Amino acid sequence: MSTTLSNKPAKLVVRCFGVSVDGYGAGTNQDLDNPMGVGGMTLHEWVFPTRTFQKMLFGKDGGTTGPDDDFAARGFDNIGAWILGRNMFGPVRGPWPDDSWKGWWGDEPPYHCDVFVLTHHARAPIEMRGGTVFHFVTDGIESALQRARQSAGGNDIRLGGGVATIREYLNARLVDELHLAIAPALLGSGESLFANIDMVRLGYKRSEHVATAKATHIVFTKDA
Amino acid sequence: MSTTLSNKPAKLVVRCFGVSVDGYGAGTNQDLDNPMGVGGMTLHEWVFPTRTFQKMLFGKDGGTTGPDDDFAARGFDNIGAWILGRNMFGPVRGPWPDDSWKGWWGDEPPYHCDVFVLTHHARAPIEMRGGTVFHFVTDGIESALQRARQSAGGNDIRLGGGVATIREYLNARLVDELHLAIAPALLGSGESLFANIDMVRLGYKRSEHVATAKATHIVFTKDA
Repeated sequence: MSTTLSNKPAKLVVRCFGVSVDGYGAGTNQDLDNPMGVGGMTLHEWVFPTRTFQKMLFGKDGGTTGPDDDFAARGFDNIGAWILGRNMFGPVRGPWPDDSWKGWWGDEPPYHCDVFVLTHHARAPIEMRGGTVFHFVTDGIESALQRARQSAGGNDIRLGGGVATIREYLNARLVDELHLAIAPALLGSGESLFANIDMVRLGYKRSEHVATAKATHIVFTKDA
Repeated sequence: MSTTLSNKPAKLVVRCFGVSVDGYGAGTNQDLDNPMGVGGMTLHEWVFPTRTFQKMLFGKDGGTTGPDDDFAARGFDNIGAWILGRNMFGPVRGPWPDDSWKGWWGDEPPYHCDVFVLTHHARAPIEMRGGTVFHFVTDGIESALQRARQSAGGNDIRLGGGVATIREYLNARLVDELHLAIAPALLGSGESLFANIDMVRLGYKRSEHVATAKATHIVFTKDA
């Protein structure tokens, strides 16, 4: 029995996801120095100068406004929980050697809600400052979504990435909305977002298209 | 011995090449009704309303001006010869059954110069109205480029497509400039332009980026 009273079902959404012209959502060789893989940061150049990101990352007022900032801000609107793939949580692979790795984001991550991290290796939840709690989910993407839905209390769930995780949720027909920011850049190699995924067959249609000097924003929405 | 006196070498250029957000430069199942493959025409919606195309296709004045039209017009600037893959010339596969197929473009094709068609099957040249001559090249992409260069007399050579032909020339490091028009559309399946082609390793860098309501135009230029 659901405890949610909203009559509008919570959506699973991907927002502000940067891709290159050659189709990569991350570079190769992710490590501590290259959280997005080599070259991957160029996919996100549109978002760093925005008012939303300047505030979030540095606590500073200022930054750019306009469509880039509008999309950045919408990325946090009405989000009640997040889901992340393990590689987006950190560069550690295999069993957790200890509890020292707590994400890329310092003591106070920008989530401020429950974050469900997909992994094959169990680990106790981590409470961070500012309301973020990392939960480690070992029984698959549908279980993570179910737990995120319970936690989100009728708000939407944002699927943060990375590429492999988004591809899994797309193929399972679980993503309701996908906002891509196409960067005017080539990566050459990396993780392809759409290779062998037929987005038309899966039922996606464009619902928005706004281009700026830094990115082409396109929102795809799945048929009900 | 070259007869060209220009000190600026002619370039091999791809212009106005439409790609979808999911990376396809043409749809599947090309045939008489779908010269660009199923769904492929949506890649070119930005160009049809332009002044340049309205004039070229229908001999009509009018049509839209602005960046879309500027790029459409530049597609014909300073072009002395064209190269086309066979599928771009027509839907016929295998040996030519007869000489009846003369391209998609009617009696007076929009090229008005020599057009070199790559094929495995020899055929006599076809002179069309308005100066277009289709030549059939059976000894490979370098030979076609060499013949096109001789014919172009110092002007540039435009590589019209399709996807497989552009991929061959990219991999051979023969394309000097590539103008893509990214359509805000999904094709779902089709011919991927960049799959397994590392454009960074091949030396391409962005030289222009202009987005309109209908397409995101990006020009990539190869290092000298």
